[in-house]
Amino acid sequence: MRHRSKKDFPVSDIRRFLEPGPIVLVSSAHKGERNIMTMGWHMIMETEPSLVGCYIWTENHSRELVRKSKECVINVPTVDIAETVVKIGNSSGRDIDKFDAFGLTAVPAKKVGAPLIAECYASFECKLVDTSLIRKYSLFVFECVKAHVAATPKFPTTIHYRGSGEFMIAGTTVAKYRRLFRPEML
Amino acid sequence: MRHRSKKDFPVSDIRRFLEPGPIVLVSSAHKGERNIMTMGWHMIMETEPSLVGCYIWTENHSRELVRKSKECVINVPTVDIAETVVKIGNSSGRDIDKFDAFGLTAVPAKKVGAPLIAECYASFECKLVDTSLIRKYSLFVFECVKAHVAATPKFPTTIHYRGSGEFMIAGTTVAKYRRLFRPEML
Repeated sequence: MRHRSKKDFPVSDIRRFLEPGPIVLVSSAHKGERNIMTMGWHMIMETEPSLVGCYIWTENHSRELVRKSKECVINVPTVDIAETVVKIGNSSGRDIDKFDAFGLTAVPAKKVGAPLIAECYASFECKLVDTSLIRKYSLFVFECVKAHVAATPKFPTTIHYRGSGEFMIAGTTVAKYRRLFRPEML
Repeated sequence: MRHRSKKDFPVSDIRRFLEPGPIVLVSSAHKGERNIMTMGWHMIMETEPSLVGCYIWTENHSRELVRKSKECVINVPTVDIAETVVKIGNSSGRDIDKFDAFGLTAVPAKKVGAPLIAECYASFECKLVDTSLIRKYSLFVFECVKAHVAATPKFPTTIHYRGSGEFMIAGTTVAKYRRLFRPEML
């Protein structure tokens, strides 16, 4: 699997990659342990600050690593590593080191202790800024503090989970409705 | 625009249509007024009960209709009405009745006062079950209490917002990774 060369990207614009709803990989680390989980339940909650809400279930091994370190990296994979994404979602960090098991490359982040995944299209370094909704909703509110995005292609071929083991693969991107937008809505 | 004939669908399975991340239309009604808003920031928060989190901004005219009625319908449009979806997102219910202005058909819901949109692929009747996050995060937590989904096609060609007036149109759906899932993860 090839490494994706990435550039700095404005944190207030990461909605461009998360709002379309792709499956993402959450990487985390705490006290010498690291893990990756596959996640489909997330949403943009604000652009400035750059807030993202994520559902991390009590059964996810990553939950305690994220909760204790108060950090994670949200990585956006594309269809070329879809099989690996599925394997990550169907194994547990209790049993294996997923970087080693699936041949993924951990790259040190700039502002958090959790590693970036070199093979992903984009990586968003995040700090946990609100823990008050974890117990009731398993909802982790993160602030993205540093974003890395591959220079090309402009529109990644992300994968989107439909349930039942089925994925929608991102199709074409169209700009033809742009003329209908009020300038302040773009 | 054609009406989509819909069937009852299990509320615990609406993630099949929301988790892939489509732009949705939120319809609402309160004291004789009705409205529709275009929304891209939403997430599944639980399947049983069927919870959906939605960001409804203070500037959205729908916000007060939803807050006061404590109900809405989340409708899933497809690419055939993309132009209408954009027009809805770039106009305000302060100025117009969007059903009339854009030729959409309001159909009475079964369990809420807000109307279904006949031209959408799916419609999820929702009750507002948690108002505690509205002030801080503009986050509305809804429970879907009734779901209506078109019988065909199985996989709707939804539209996914990338920002800057650009949409990703849902591509093909693949089941080839299904064999990699543990049965309890499907």
